[in-house]
Amino acid sequence: MVDITHKSTTLRVATAQAIVRVSKEETIQSIKENRVPKGSVLDMAKAAGLLGVKKTSELLPDCHPLPIEFTGIEYEFDGLEIRVLMTVKTIYKTGVEVEAMHGASVVALTMYDMLKPIDKGVEISNIKLLTKKGGKSDRNPNTS
Amino acid sequence: MVDITHKSTTLRVATAQAIVRVSKEETIQSIKENRVPKGSVLDMAKAAGLLGVKKTSELLPDCHPLPIEFTGIEYEFDGLEIRVLMTVKTIYKTGVEVEAMHGASVVALTMYDMLKPIDKGVEISNIKLLTKKGGKSDRNPNTS
Amino acid sequence: MVDITHKSTTLRVATAQAIVRVSKEETIQSIKENRVPKGSVLDMAKAAGLLGVKKTSELLPDCHPLPIEFTGIEYEFDGLEIRVLMTVKTIYKTGVEVEAMHGASVVALTMYDMLKPIDKGVEISNIKLLTKKGGKSDRNPNTS
Amino acid sequence: MVDITHKSTTLRVATAQAIVRVSKEETIQSIKENRVPKGSVLDMAKAAGLLGVKKTSELLPDCHPLPIEFTGIEYEFDGLEIRVLMTVKTIYKTGVEVEAMHGASVVALTMYDMLKPIDKGVEISNIKLLTKKGGKSDRNPNTS
Amino acid sequence: MVDITHKSTTLRVATAQAIVRVSKEETIQSIKENRVPKGSVLDMAKAAGLLGVKKTSELLPDCHPLPIEFTGIEYEFDGLEIRVLMTVKTIYKTGVEVEAMHGASVVALTMYDMLKPIDKGVEISNIKLLTKKGGKSDRNPNTS
Amino acid sequence: MVDITHKSTTLRVATAQAIVRVSKEETIQSIKENRVPKGSVLDMAKAAGLLGVKKTSELLPDCHPLPIEFTGIEYEFDGLEIRVLMTVKTIYKTGVEVEAMHGASVVALTMYDMLKPIDKGVEISNIKLLTKKGGKSDRNPNTS
Repeated sequence: MVDITHKSTTLRVATAQAIVRVSKEETIQSIKENRVPKGSVLDMAKAAGLLGVKKTSELLPDCHPLPIEFTGIEYEFDGLEIRVLMTVKTIYKTGVEVEAMHGASVVALTMYDMLKPIDKGVEISNIKLLTKKGGKSDRNPNTS
Repeated sequence: MVDITHKSTTLRVATAQAIVRVSKEETIQSIKENRVPKGSVLDMAKAAGLLGVKKTSELLPDCHPLPIEFTGIEYEFDGLEIRVLMTVKTIYKTGVEVEAMHGASVVALTMYDMLKPIDKGVEISNIKLLTKKGGKSDRNPNTS
Repeated sequence: MVDITHKSTTLRVATAQAIVRVSKEETIQSIKENRVPKGSVLDMAKAAGLLGVKKTSELLPDCHPLPIEFTGIEYEFDGLEIRVLMTVKTIYKTGVEVEAMHGASVVALTMYDMLKPIDKGVEISNIKLLTKKGGKSDRNPNTS
Repeated sequence: MVDITHKSTTLRVATAQAIVRVSKEETIQSIKENRVPKGSVLDMAKAAGLLGVKKTSELLPDCHPLPIEFTGIEYEFDGLEIRVLMTVKTIYKTGVEVEAMHGASVVALTMYDMLKPIDKGVEISNIKLLTKKGGKSDRNPNTS
Repeated sequence: MVDITHKSTTLRVATAQAIVRVSKEETIQSIKENRVPKGSVLDMAKAAGLLGVKKTSELLPDCHPLPIEFTGIEYEFDGLEIRVLMTVKTIYKTGVEVEAMHGASVVALTMYDMLKPIDKGVEISNIKLLTKKGGKSDRNPNTS
Repeated sequence: MVDITHKSTTLRVATAQAIVRVSKEETIQSIKENRVPKGSVLDMAKAAGLLGVKKTSELLPDCHPLPIEFTGIEYEFDGLEIRVLMTVKTIYKTGVEVEAMHGASVVALTMYDMLKPIDKGVEISNIKLLTKKGGKSDRNPNTS
């Protein structure tokens, strides 16, 4: 684990995405109309994601535990794809990139798990960092 | 959560994949020659994955806790891509698909986290179920 | 911890309740119309409860870990009170009473936590076992 | 999850209670004389409560993880009731109300679980915040 | 992780020990007379140990999660040493050796942590398996 | 739990050890040549230890959760013994002694668990604090 005792504390923000792709339009309708048998997919996946972000350092060996000061989840629908956007903030010595990526992954997996009984063709793709602020390597990987 | 009290116990096997794509050949060399500063990427990600599989039902609300009776991890290198193959087995009433997918995701995220200092362009893609045995819907989604 | 190696496995069902009492009619309306700023209270508390049931044996020292085979959550509205009904099933050697009670408690606490910004007077009361089936002391404490 | 990146850090103290009501005087005597078969109820429930307070943000989706700087547990006996008083302190941007309430709940559930073999009529009631200091809404809900 | 899907289920029992050595007779007296400021050392360490046994497979990558059906803790005093004896039972396909050893370790570390303010010279030694029953390699390492 | 709200924050460093003693030279060779069937013992135990340090306050009731800012693991071979050295750093109000000791214990237990199939005589001994810096009682217990 990298030694961060000498680093200074700054506001860090990271947004990551995960794409959940379903196999039929009907699945999208069931989600939007809240008719999935296991429950409200977007709300329950949001709850799982909020908890998942906080468990990141329990799963990744080199990840520093840090104070999660904000977690926000948004969903964007585009055809058969649902784009999960997970934003995490902290004021600390390291960034929250992997926290955002792990949170997006947990949201996507919860959606997969809840949709499985009604759609066997769900896939998760493109878990990646979208933007990152704070620390020495501020960047927006999408536009650079 | 689906009621499984009436279901019968059978051997279940699931294999899932996650693709870790790095941005330069040098990163692949560092992994293979075990020169990544944070440590042996493949071995440490394997340990994290073994633990991650066991934590699946703690992260996904509707996922039944079940006895993990085997977890195996393999890596396949192909150009700038490393394909993580996670196989999980149980003898139980429900399958181990999400366990395999979550495990593959944790392995991929650990690799991302360990490679971050030497490669800022790592992405995770195509977390999906490859094969599944046991239960009523045996299938091989790749060939069907 | 009680030794259960000699006990036989039977279907066990337990239902527990927790009462969440809010301080004003407006809070009930906000919940029903899904206007609480932190999100959909009933759905997110359900997700937290599903996860909470599975964590019971991590919190109570003498509680045996067991296979949670069903968890169901219902809400009943009565004036300023919301009654959380948590049902848990297992086929195992011990019952799921404390799992149901702990789950009801986590649902109630999540509701409290989500409602706090709009209602400072929320209280949780009467966490208790309602019914229990399986094992040697089948009973319905409400009618006996 | 509420964004707290802009908030300032102050000392926060919260005390919550939970009432454990047993069904017979004999149970109270067994607790006081340390004759409960599962062990020393008050000490073991205290240990479970200390650990439970620290797990609050793992159970409640919107709860910020925060540095628990003090946890104290007291028991008050009154007839067939045992009042659990859980006090938590932090120096942070948000309060420790739900941490105190969750801790009181875990103490009460541990007592229930340990007493179950000798008293089938134990109930938990009135989990509520008693006092809160620090932050913008200092208050003592009992006297206001 | 070793594949155990083909193995048969038998009763498994393991007893492990850990030795806690304090630096002065006064510490032993404080423990026995229940005068340690942090609380009742033996009872609280017992609670921590019961919980710790159940967390073993969360900490050791290759350890199979299994149904803990009994956990018992005993303490033996001998001069400046306290011998922690942790016995674990399961009816499963693999043994409970590491569970017993991990539990003994958590009991010993909790004692260390609670005694630290009154005795700076506490050490933990000889965490080892004492006896093991069930499975193909029954043995009593002490007498063999 | 001790009240630390009034304490000031300083850099704290602690190094603990655990000794893993195997029963035959062959085991040492298998570790060094990376031929242990379960995988790379030193790397996987390192991953488990990094995660284990972060879980210390979940296992020890009185242990304050704190920001782990560095964790380093070293192995020293001496005949049939492998000495695990675990160093932990934080900038906080309390020290990281038990974190270092718990981490060393998890590394040692993971080694034991991985070596068990090839060596039935592994023992863990002398889990103790080696050095400690920061706070009011700086010391080096080995040389004092």
